Amino acid sequence: MNFEFQNPTRLIFGAGSLSRLGEVVSEYGQKALIVTGGGSIKRSGIFDRAVVSLKGAGIPFAQCAGVEPNPRISSVVRGAETVRTEGCDVIIALGGGSTIDAAKVIAAAVFYDGDPWDMIRHGDEKLYVPLKALPIIAVPTLAATGSEANSTAVISNEETLIKSSISNNCLYPRVAVVDPELTVSVPKDQTAYGVCDTIIHVTETYFNGIGGTPIQDRFAEGVILTAMEWGPKALADGTDIEARAQIQWAALVALNGWLQVGTDSSRPVHKIEHTLSAHHDVTHAAGLSAVNQSWMRFAAKTRPERFVQFAQRIFGLIPKSPDDMDCAMEGIDRFEEFMKSIGCPTSLSEIGIGDELFSRYADDILFLAKDRYGNLPGRPTMNRDDILELLRASL
Amino acid sequence: MNFEFQNPTRLIFGAGSLSRLGEVVSEYGQKALIVTGGGSIKRSGIFDRAVVSLKGAGIPFAQCAGVEPNPRISSVVRGAETVRTEGCDVIIALGGGSTIDAAKVIAAAVFYDGDPWDMIRHGDEKLYVPLKALPIIAVPTLAATGSEANSTAVISNEETLIKSSISNNCLYPRVAVVDPELTVSVPKDQTAYGVCDTIIHVTETYFNGIGGTPIQDRFAEGVILTAMEWGPKALADGTDIEARAQIQWAALVALNGWLQVGTDSSRPVHKIEHTLSAHHDVTHAAGLSAVNQSWMRFAAKTRPERFVQFAQRIFGLIPKSPDDMDCAMEGIDRFEEFMKSIGCPTSLSEIGIGDELFSRYADDILFLAKDRYGNLPGRPTMNRDDILELLRASL
Repeated sequence: MNFEFQNPTRLIFGAGSLSRLGEVVSEYGQKALIVTGGGSIKRSGIFDRAVVSLKGAGIPFAQCAGVEPNPRISSVVRGAETVRTEGCDVIIALGGGSTIDAAKVIAAAVFYDGDPWDMIRHGDEKLYVPLKALPIIAVPTLAATGSEANSTAVISNEETLIKSSISNNCLYPRVAVVDPELTVSVPKDQTAYGVCDTIIHVTETYFNGIGGTPIQDRFAEGVILTAMEWGPKALADGTDIEARAQIQWAALVALNGWLQVGTDSSRPVHKIEHTLSAHHDVTHAAGLSAVNQSWMRFAAKTRPERFVQFAQRIFGLIPKSPDDMDCAMEGIDRFEEFMKSIGCPTSLSEIGIGDELFSRYADDILFLAKDRYGNLPGRPTMNRDDILELLRASL
Repeated sequence: MNFEFQNPTRLIFGAGSLSRLGEVVSEYGQKALIVTGGGSIKRSGIFDRAVVSLKGAGIPFAQCAGVEPNPRISSVVRGAETVRTEGCDVIIALGGGSTIDAAKVIAAAVFYDGDPWDMIRHGDEKLYVPLKALPIIAVPTLAATGSEANSTAVISNEETLIKSSISNNCLYPRVAVVDPELTVSVPKDQTAYGVCDTIIHVTETYFNGIGGTPIQDRFAEGVILTAMEWGPKALADGTDIEARAQIQWAALVALNGWLQVGTDSSRPVHKIEHTLSAHHDVTHAAGLSAVNQSWMRFAAKTRPERFVQFAQRIFGLIPKSPDDMDCAMEGIDRFEEFMKSIGCPTSLSEIGIGDELFSRYADDILFLAKDRYGNLPGRPTMNRDDILELLRASL
């Protein structure tokens, strides 16, 4: 375990926190760009409440509305232009993970005269590495990606059909204003996808880390168990504010680095999903869920002991040995049952993806991330044939 | 769960990290004050290795050596004077928790012309609240207090026999350079006390929090289980670098806020111990261990369900009901057995404390911390009679 870690994001958490937005923003700037997604933020009244708080603090603002569910680089370009023409000096992201991701890249793009796509990892091309960004205040309206408290953004290029990411210290939001009340109107399917997203963020770390990180393992299991306990409660009653708070806190810590620190984990299931949703209009979590369990069964063959630990500590199964493959598989089956129980797809066919483009997906996945042997990083690494086998197993 | 949280400390963790000290310090200042404790830091060669790294980076330094195991306010005064006369602009704490605590208060005292004791909470007197401090680089040589990554310092006043604390955002070390290699020469008893300190930091939060914090509970259990698994390995073989790394990581996360966030927990066992070690030359963890289990038995009476959860998740006991008192008590007995097994005292008589001053201790404890009803904060709160009963039960 050798690592360097710092997460500077200030967290303001709790029901009613949105009312503090204006006061918080005024600490970091004088004119805001508010980045939002679709129309629900205005229909729900959340946008108006944010505006009341900003006006109370005397903060004028411009807008960048309509960021897509898989945020496009063209929206980033548009947002950065608005910042420049309107003279904004602080960015407010008010929405789900896509909105926050777009806001992050807008905040950095303001200081770069070239194409912002130069910042996003894509293949072997040389990248522009941002050195600074405008202060970002993230106000998540969905418990899902945890983007409000980390330094990563995922952006899609609608021309090249590549969906990829940037991670940079300057992209940590200065403040995450996390108000579970904003999530009570999230519909059932999106609530379930958020729970799925949270859990798979954790399992990616858990199964792809170096091992020998017992505290991080326990933390990961804690978040999974909590999401599995409180997710169904939020689904049963969307107005259960305690359930909403627990799953939003779970989503945040799932990806703010506390579980990842020191684990040196990669995220193969995410790379696969990024390619699928770059080609198809698929919700991120649905894409993850459709391939994740097949990935687990593939990975269990080479690292049974971690899947046995998962089966034991998440589902209380009792293994016959530390690498009891039956126990490992039983744990994965149980996990798949849970995913189904909250309404998440567990196959590609359920999300309307067939085998026509498998070869293209495999190429694109390895374009996104490959090690020096040409394989997809992860534990185990996957070659092109492994990826094709996984896709077929997910049909 | 409503809270605000930010821990800005940059963590550099791993065997060999000490060699980066000079490079790191040069990012924050030009001349350092090195704060150290007793002579072991020089005998072990750690001090010389730190000096080599500083010289390599061209960083001159002054020294404040000899900080006491329960650091005294007079050492803080001495260190601040050295900073002023030598013109230091960055503070290096190289030692255990006491050394780091003293360094923190020195860093703030430099900017205050009055008596630094004005910064430490003591009774109802008005305090000086520091607004800034010199940058602090903490290099722990012991896995115990976690002071390297939090904003708290505990200081003793040798004249008034009061031991109390300060917490302030300006006291977060800028960097914690955590090198488990520095702890391989820590003797068995201090290693055990460090494990005890770590675990009781966690149990204080776990048993005195608001409840309804399932993720924080799981995190806390994860740190306890890891310290109980790896502590005995470090005791069995002090040179086991993996065991040293695990218990040092456990000590850090036990008190860097990740487990405390949102729990609104107080620390009654610490208040009791602070009074004991202000009157007697007792190691912090030994004082904690001597009264902690009696406190647990006292608290279990009003919050059995949390102690049942502890018994269940730490020791695998199976309760008959959520408030099964037999199960709760069995968990506490098992925990006491563990403390004994690593050589920690479980009674006041073992650390040479009799009942002569119980009345004075009770007064001093309530002088340190009392709520508006005059009781010691905690769950449950304790009145003067409760404290005396607890002390008698700990004999």
